[in-house]
Amino acid sequence: MKRREFLKSGLAGSAAATIAAPAVAQSAPEVKWRLTSSFPRSLDTLYGASELLSRIVAEATDGKFQIQVFSPGEIVPGLQALDAVGNATVEMAHSSSFYYIGKDTAFAFATAMPFGLNARQQNAWIHHGGGQELMDRLYAKFNLCALPGGNTNCQMGGWFRKEIRTVEDLDGLKMRIGGLAGQVMQKLGAVPQQIAGGDIYPALEKGSIDAVEWGGPYDDEKLGFARVAPYYYYPGWWEGGAMLHFFFNLEKLAALPPAYRAVIRNAAAYVNVDVQAKYDAFNPGAIKRLVQNGALLRPFSTEIMEASWNAAKELYAELNAKNPEFKTIYDSYMPFRSDQYLWQQIAELSYDAYMIRQRTRG
Amino acid sequence: MKRREFLKSGLAGSAAATIAAPAVAQSAPEVKWRLTSSFPRSLDTLYGASELLSRIVAEATDGKFQIQVFSPGEIVPGLQALDAVGNATVEMAHSSSFYYIGKDTAFAFATAMPFGLNARQQNAWIHHGGGQELMDRLYAKFNLCALPGGNTNCQMGGWFRKEIRTVEDLDGLKMRIGGLAGQVMQKLGAVPQQIAGGDIYPALEKGSIDAVEWGGPYDDEKLGFARVAPYYYYPGWWEGGAMLHFFFNLEKLAALPPAYRAVIRNAAAYVNVDVQAKYDAFNPGAIKRLVQNGALLRPFSTEIMEASWNAAKELYAELNAKNPEFKTIYDSYMPFRSDQYLWQQIAELSYDAYMIRQRTRG
Repeated sequence: MKRREFLKSGLAGSAAATIAAPAVAQSAPEVKWRLTSSFPRSLDTLYGASELLSRIVAEATDGKFQIQVFSPGEIVPGLQALDAVGNATVEMAHSSSFYYIGKDTAFAFATAMPFGLNARQQNAWIHHGGGQELMDRLYAKFNLCALPGGNTNCQMGGWFRKEIRTVEDLDGLKMRIGGLAGQVMQKLGAVPQQIAGGDIYPALEKGSIDAVEWGGPYDDEKLGFARVAPYYYYPGWWEGGAMLHFFFNLEKLAALPPAYRAVIRNAAAYVNVDVQAKYDAFNPGAIKRLVQNGALLRPFSTEIMEASWNAAKELYAELNAKNPEFKTIYDSYMPFRSDQYLWQQIAELSYDAYMIRQRTRG
Repeated sequence: MKRREFLKSGLAGSAAATIAAPAVAQSAPEVKWRLTSSFPRSLDTLYGASELLSRIVAEATDGKFQIQVFSPGEIVPGLQALDAVGNATVEMAHSSSFYYIGKDTAFAFATAMPFGLNARQQNAWIHHGGGQELMDRLYAKFNLCALPGGNTNCQMGGWFRKEIRTVEDLDGLKMRIGGLAGQVMQKLGAVPQQIAGGDIYPALEKGSIDAVEWGGPYDDEKLGFARVAPYYYYPGWWEGGAMLHFFFNLEKLAALPPAYRAVIRNAAAYVNVDVQAKYDAFNPGAIKRLVQNGALLRPFSTEIMEASWNAAKELYAELNAKNPEFKTIYDSYMPFRSDQYLWQQIAELSYDAYMIRQRTRG
């Protein structure tokens, strides 16, 4: 959603909108909202994003607009944030859009696609590539809208108990993996599971799963996967840059004074850049510690990468055929991706590759 | 500057701070500020950043906090924004920190360093790598503070009338190039010039300069350099990601109600991500049009890259010896850079390189 659309969001036809009458005395009312996070409190990055939003919204409104943050399970389970916002159990949430591909596969575009946009490109698509408008239409069907609220950046390919060299090694492998990546993995013979953050480690420990992808080094270190599954693969080709989102109930948003809507939109942008910066700042230290403590870094083999690429293409063809909404967004997203990488290979990649070569040379 | 520091900025010891008394009636006063931009009005990216900030600050304060935007030359020339803010001629500015290396070479760190951090890494260093605190100390000496306000992302290496294959080809070349990059170029025999955006094209046209670096394809296309100097080199090794900044006069900032300070900080973050997204979204189309219209894309030769790298190292040694402030920041920035590229080569680079290979294969 673009700035202006977010500001007038839901105003048309919403009974609640009348609350936001333009009288000056009402322009800065006391408002209390509840936010449910899909992420465990132990992750200062992901859970911290909601706490940060709450704090900076309060600061910008002299404490008048208060957002109380709840952990998964306190109000609703981690993976039910979308329903909870849509039906106004809570006013807002912090979650991953692609958790909800069971409702509509097109939700995946807002977060990350297998072999999709990287983190910066995702911001570009959402802000200036038509992505926000396309996603708005989908979210509106579920009575909500969403704004970017951080990015994990390119993720790792996850933790495996054993080495994975060939596609055969994936056969029957039970893996916690979210979004469409699970469906790609399934085409390769793996058995994907969707499990919320806090429940993964116990599942891995007791052996009900063989592998897990969660995020990057900083979060993964906290969740302790290395102790049980030491092979740490890269890159996470299903999350070249996984965008997080704040969800807003449309009527509740429309009921806010316009200034508060602007405050929360600007604050979400602060969180968006801050969370991404935090991952970038803290991942290097974490990867060093993980390797020192026994994590075994492995690149996915060319065989696995090629098979995954082909399986993703096959999946996209199926989803385009099945879901017109998916195809509409796909037809914006994929040409955008092509243009992004055309440009990136000129300046950005040649710069970064040179810097990495020089670093290696010392 | 971190969130909390920005909020209490200048409150200690500032006479002006008493204006921000905590009475409720004063918590949302009418405030009018003036902002001078260092960038020509013709650039919707750079100049547009200030207009966007002005609009979203007004939205978040019910129109009570108004920021009027001025072009370079309307109040002060483009390259005098820092002085104008420091002496309160204007309350704030949008500019590039490295324009002011004549005052202190350490100003360069806030924008971009030759062979320095890329755009995302620069956000990481500022937000969570200690960069903001280090820069705050420097800015405070000039009676201002600064927040990120966009990033051009990795720039191109500029426009040249003739091909540049060897270091000898740079000998005597008059080039518009800003910041420390000019000093590196000087070591290679070129004659650097600092010229504000709007004045570059006339200088190039009448032949008083032979080459110009400005930014990336989208801005460069607007400024029309291709018509006069068709060889378009990459990468811009001096601006792997050039961060723009909003400057704030310390007393004027302290005089704001705390909520307005939070509003402007959050709004600056919105602009920070939006400007970066705009460059990413619009550069691909621009590079295609430029090439179609005759721009001749050329990578810098290995000889030029290596000579530039070595000249930059030499310059850093000199600046560290001459300027303790420079060395203090350098000692934070360079280890951070090393860690960033250690991590980036694992997941990000392998992902992006794979995506680019697949794109080329079709």
